[in-house]
Formats: sequence, C-alpha cells, structure tokens
Amino acid sequence: MKATLLTVGDELLIGQVIDSNAAWIAGQLYLLGIGVARKISVGDNLPDIIEAVERSFQDTDMILMTGGLGPTKDDVTKKALMQYFDCELVFSEETYERIRKIFEKRNIPLREAHRNQCFLPEKAELLFNRLGTAPGMWFESNGKILVSMPGVPYEMKYIMEHGVLPRLKDRSGTILLQKTIRTIGVGESSLADMVEPLLMESPVKIAYLPSIGQVRLRLSIEGQSADGLQELLEEKVSLLERELGSIIFGYDETTIEEAIGQMLRQRKLSLITAESCTGGYLAHLITSVPGSSDYFTGSIVAYSNSIKTSILRVSPKTLERWGAVSKQTVEEMVRGALRSSEADLGIAVSGIAGPGGGSDDKPVGTIWIAVGDIDNIITKEYLFTKDRIINIKYTGIYALDLLRKFLLAR
Amino acid sequence: MKATLLTVGDELLIGQVIDSNAAWIAGQLYLLGIGVARKISVGDNLPDIIEAVERSFQDTDMILMTGGLGPTKDDVTKKALMQYFDCELVFSEETYERIRKIFEKRNIPLREAHRNQCFLPEKAELLFNRLGTAPGMWFESNGKILVSMPGVPYEMKYIMEHGVLPRLKDRSGTILLQKTIRTIGVGESSLADMVEPLLMESPVKIAYLPSIGQVRLRLSIEGQSADGLQELLEEKVSLLERELGSIIFGYDETTIEEAIGQMLRQRKLSLITAESCTGGYLAHLITSVPGSSDYFTGSIVAYSNSIKTSILRVSPKTLERWGAVSKQTVEEMVRGALRSSEADLGIAVSGIAGPGGGSDDKPVGTIWIAVGDIDNIITKEYLFTKDRIINIKYTGIYALDLLRKFLLAR
Repeated sequence: MKATLLTVGDELLIGQVIDSNAAWIAGQLYLLGIGVARKISVGDNLPDIIEAVERSFQDTDMILMTGGLGPTKDDVTKKALMQYFDCELVFSEETYERIRKIFEKRNIPLREAHRNQCFLPEKAELLFNRLGTAPGMWFESNGKILVSMPGVPYEMKYIMEHGVLPRLKDRSGTILLQKTIRTIGVGESSLADMVEPLLMESPVKIAYLPSIGQVRLRLSIEGQSADGLQELLEEKVSLLERELGSIIFGYDETTIEEAIGQMLRQRKLSLITAESCTGGYLAHLITSVPGSSDYFTGSIVAYSNSIKTSILRVSPKTLERWGAVSKQTVEEMVRGALRSSEADLGIAVSGIAGPGGGSDDKPVGTIWIAVGDIDNIITKEYLFTKDRIINIKYTGIYALDLLRKFLLAR
Repeated sequence: MKATLLTVGDELLIGQVIDSNAAWIAGQLYLLGIGVARKISVGDNLPDIIEAVERSFQDTDMILMTGGLGPTKDDVTKKALMQYFDCELVFSEETYERIRKIFEKRNIPLREAHRNQCFLPEKAELLFNRLGTAPGMWFESNGKILVSMPGVPYEMKYIMEHGVLPRLKDRSGTILLQKTIRTIGVGESSLADMVEPLLMESPVKIAYLPSIGQVRLRLSIEGQSADGLQELLEEKVSLLERELGSIIFGYDETTIEEAIGQMLRQRKLSLITAESCTGGYLAHLITSVPGSSDYFTGSIVAYSNSIKTSILRVSPKTLERWGAVSKQTVEEMVRGALRSSEADLGIAVSGIAGPGGGSDDKPVGTIWIAVGDIDNIITKEYLFTKDRIINIKYTGIYALDLLRKFLLAR
C-alpha cells in the first residue's frame, strides 16, 4: 500500500506555517509499513485540491489529507471532496449535537458557521473528533481510500490515533519491525563511526535522527513473514548496547525527561531546580511528563541576581568575585535550592544564552551546570552556540543528562 | 511568476524530518510577490524526481529544489537533473579547490565521495555555497528556471540569500502587500463573524491562522502596480482595529510574550511569576524574548505544596480549605511572589493540567490565574482541555493576556 499526503492551506504556501502534520503522519504510516510516495501541499483553492487528488490516485492507493475544514470561508476542502466524489452534503445531527454540547459547556453561543460545519458529504464516513468541531471523513471507493482531517495538529492526531491508524494496521501487507535507541551527548558522525562497522551487510537498516543534544538511532528490518525478524533485530540491538553503553538513555518514545523521571521514581528521590539562563525551560521539560509532581518539587527561576541572593542565598561576594556564570555560583545555587525545600537532589544552571551579555572571557553560549545532593555536587562547563533558543534547549537537555550521570554513578 | 517547491529526501517521507526548508523558501518568495502554487516532497528516487520536475513545469515557471546533493550514495538529484536537462557532468576545478581548502583548514582528509561532488551538470550555473561542499545549481531554459540547492538548512539559506533571491527580485512582476494582525482570547469563528462583513467585496483578502489561544489575521492585497495598494490595505487595517479593539495585541511577527515585554519596558515595570500547573512554561515563554532580564526577575515554580507554603507563604489553611487550585491560593501566590522579590507585578497560576488529578468539582483543565500588584489583584477561572501539554500552553498564553489586560486597565 502506497500513500500520498496532501496538506491544504494558503498558509503553507507563504511560509507562515511549517508543515509538521505531514511529517507526523508519515512517521505513523512508516511504523505500519505503509510507504509515502509523495507529499503535496496546495492552497485553499478548489481546482488545485481536485487536481492533486486525481493526480495522486493515479499511482497511490490512499490519500491522507489535512486542512481546509475550519468554519471560515477560506476552507474549501469539503467542496472539493463533494465535487470529486460526486455527492451532496447532508446534515449530521450527531455532529451538531456534539458541537452544541461543547459550546454549552463552555457557555459560548453556537454560531451559524458551526452549524455549517455539520453539513457533511454523504459519501463520507465520519471519524469522531473529540478535540474540535470538524469530524474527520473517510471515503472509500474502488479500493482507494481518502481520509480528510482538520489541520489543527492535536485534532488531526486524535482522529489518526483513534479512527485511522487502527484500521490501516489491519490492511498493511509488509511486516516492519523497528526499535529506536535513544542516545545523548554524542554527535551524529561520531555515533556513525561507532555503529556502522556493526551493521555492515546486515538486513537491519539504521537511520540517524538528530535533535538538540540527542540522536535517535532507528533500527528497522522488513520482511514478508515474521520468521526470525525479531531475533535479527534484537541481536543488533544488543550489539549496539555493548558498544554505546551509557550514551543510551532509553528506547523508542522515551524522552530524556521521562527517563530521568523513572530513575527518580525508582530511587524514591525528589528534585528541585534553580535556573538562571534557562528561565524555566528546565522545569518545563521535567513537568511536561504526566505525574512528575511525584518527584519534582519545583524550581527557583532566579533571572535577577536579587532572587539569586534572596531566595537561593548565593553570596553577593561570590557573584561579585566570580560572576553569575561560574562554577561557584551554580554550586551555591544548588545548595540554596536544596536548603529552601525538602528535595533530595538539585540541578542549577547559569549561562549566557545571548544574543547580548557575552564577553571575551565568557562568550555567548557559555553555560555552567551543577548537579548534586547536600553532600556531593558535580559541575561542568559547556560552550554551546550563538543562538538564544538553541542554547536554552541545549542547557535543559544537558542538565538532565548530568543528573542522569550523577544518578548512575551513585 | 508562479513557483513549485520541490524537496527531495527519503527522510521527508518517513517523518524523520519536518520540512522547514520549504516553509522558509515560501516565506522568502512571498515577500517578493512570487506565489507558490504547490509544494512537493519526493524520495531519493530518480523517476520520482524527474516526474515531479516535468509535472511542475507544466503549470509553473520556476522550481526551487532542495536536498539530494550530499556525498552519500542515496543522493540522486544530480543524476535526475542531468537526465532531465540532457547534459553531461563536468569536473569543476573551482569547486574542488574550495572543498580542498575547507578540509585542509579542518585537518580532515578529503574523501573520494567529496571529489565526486565536484562533477556537476554542464548546463548548470554554479551558485557559491560558503557553508558547505555542494554548490547550488541554476538551470534556465525556455523561460523556465530550476534551482537546486543542498538540503542542509543553513547552506540552502546562504545560497538563497546570496545567489537566488537577488536575481528573482529583479524578475518578479506582481506586487503583494500584507499585514498580519495578531489577536488573542477569541476563537476563529467569532472573529470571522466580526471581520467578514468589513471585508465584503474588498480586494483585500483575509486568512485566519489559529494557534493555541490566538488567531493571526493575515490581510493581503495584490496588484500589478503599487498605486493605491498600501492605502487600501491600511484602510482595512484601521477598520479592523476599530472593530476588534483590545483583542489585538500586535502585528506581523510580534508574539504575545514580546508584546508584554514592550509594555513592561515602556512602563518601567518588573514582573515575577509563581507557577504551579505550568511548571516553568510561563517563565520560559517570557524569557524566550532576548533582553527579558530587563523586566523579568524570575519565577517560583511551586510544584509541591511545601514550596507554596515555604517560599510563597501561602497559608496552609488556605490550601486545606480551598485547595491548591482556587482563587484564594493564586491570590496568595501573587502576594507571596511579590513579597519575595522587588518586582512590581506578579502573575500566579494553579490548575489541573492532567491527565490525573481531576474531580467532579474541578475537572482536568480547570485553571485559576491571578495578576496584580501589591494593592490590586484580578483573578479569573478557565476551563481548557483534557490534554496536559495543551492545557499548559493555554495557561501560559492566557496568563500573559490577563497581564496585558491588567496593564491596559491601569
């Protein structure tokens, strides 16, 4: 089975929005062994949508579409699909009732535009959208499938996960197994040097997926039958584990913040952070994990020196002598954070995120991180990039990694 | 002039990489008044590339391509272009010398794969790439233009900015003007009801670009000459400003966190935040703005009740009687935060981000926000969604909006 991804929206053609929907859908289909032949984006424009659909069905069996279903007039996907599938709109009582209840609950009057969203092509099977007003639509004729979904990413994901992927799973012919090894702190090309010799001439393929401070190694193996595939894959995974050691922090969808959370939970330890240059991003990373309140007590974001001295009790002399971006300051920040709460462990970060504030001595991108408990603190200095947001993200990720190393060594 | 954007790479079709190149190029062309008719992504696959090029030249005058020029064996763009333009490869001494020097400087041996990158289609005019090994290529025949660039974003941008955009600027015929009005706190369809009657039959077009808690209204007008276009656009902008009033927080690329920063800076006021459910995200939003240390002192992320009572001095009785998610608690959190620092203004948030922790009384998505100074605090209750990350983001955005309203009313 081959698919085309079709994303609709003028905003995609003028660069106002990056098409993350198509990438996410492609990733999901890949896991089912469904290849994407092509991605196309067109504007909110009837003939272009119809032409793209006709063209795509010439050589693919399935089109997954997003966008163009909102209540405003620039959304023409529904009209295009009516025309392509040659059918009328019918009023969906079920959809209307659902929308009515959403608005009732939020105490907002229901508008004409929303009533119009309940008129849907009669040949479409509707896919439940728990998170928004427009349902997804599943069309099927002559062995070809077209699915149309809203462009709002979380609505699209809900419909994919609940209405689309389970069905497609049953229909896919090839068996594809995969395992993602998640690594931290080592660059893509160094990893490749370590890993490539182990995978020579193997049916197990590898892909490198770098992000800030991390590389995911995706191993995959394909076959018409399941026989022996799993064993081949696991053998290579063990081989890589021996080679990479503690560079690996987790597998598949596990993020570094989840891995840290699991370690803290297992060891029944609690954590507090004290942040300067990350400005809350480190705490945000940690608290993006559901249930993190079990081990995370909080963060003192000491953006000004006055909060560093008042709440974190960093000595004004330390700030004066060594500066806010120094080994001494981050050590005192950890101690102050631990004293201000009942947490077992603390992380502190201070650095020059940029664009301003750099000097010859401490250029933009200079970051100090400290991790420890009341008896024992380790510190490390880093030099990241010239970009503010990237520096903030690097610092958050490397701070979590330093905590991981501290816990591993305990 | 109409363009097709063609991005090449298997990684785009399996969801490994989000296609940010196409969005960036589209944005640059838009500023020159060059419309993008379509974006296509295909794999590293000769027939698919050639077919996409043939197909695109049927209805557009220009193709901007990225990807498939690297030194690894899966890159086939060059072969496809040789075949399409029916020409041979010739060795480029100039490119070889440039690459040789780069490697010499970095002290890395030059590999065969890099020498191969110096064989380039003879019909291509080479575009200088200061940041990488593969040059850009400009093909032109029968009034049609094809530009091929590497997929590495910063290399592509260098070639676009130095080799491609200056030339295209001279050739573009149409003039396109645009202005984006940024709104907050009102949904897309309610906005449409307010705005649509004002733009009936107008040559000024509108598009709605929603994101969490916000909608960007993009107004645009096109013409063959500049005469009167700016006036028409400005007239509509004023009309919308009168209708929408304080729903508008800024224009074009201004984010809500920047708008808040500008207001605080102008009024010489400083801000502290006290966060429970947002877990640092609110501070992260604020500190993602360069220079925010001028007005932001920090944040107390009081994830545990013990930090609420110790550092923020929320009364244990308040927590017991009203709960951590209550009007009373967020008010005390603001006061405590203000007392703990020298900041003029405080924001406090507390809520149930989910997925756990909800009850009949206070379901997941219930959030309290308080904003104020030492004399005067306003509070508001919200009910957002069932999704943890979305709730965190909504809360951050609405907290900034409540601060904005507080400042506007002062």
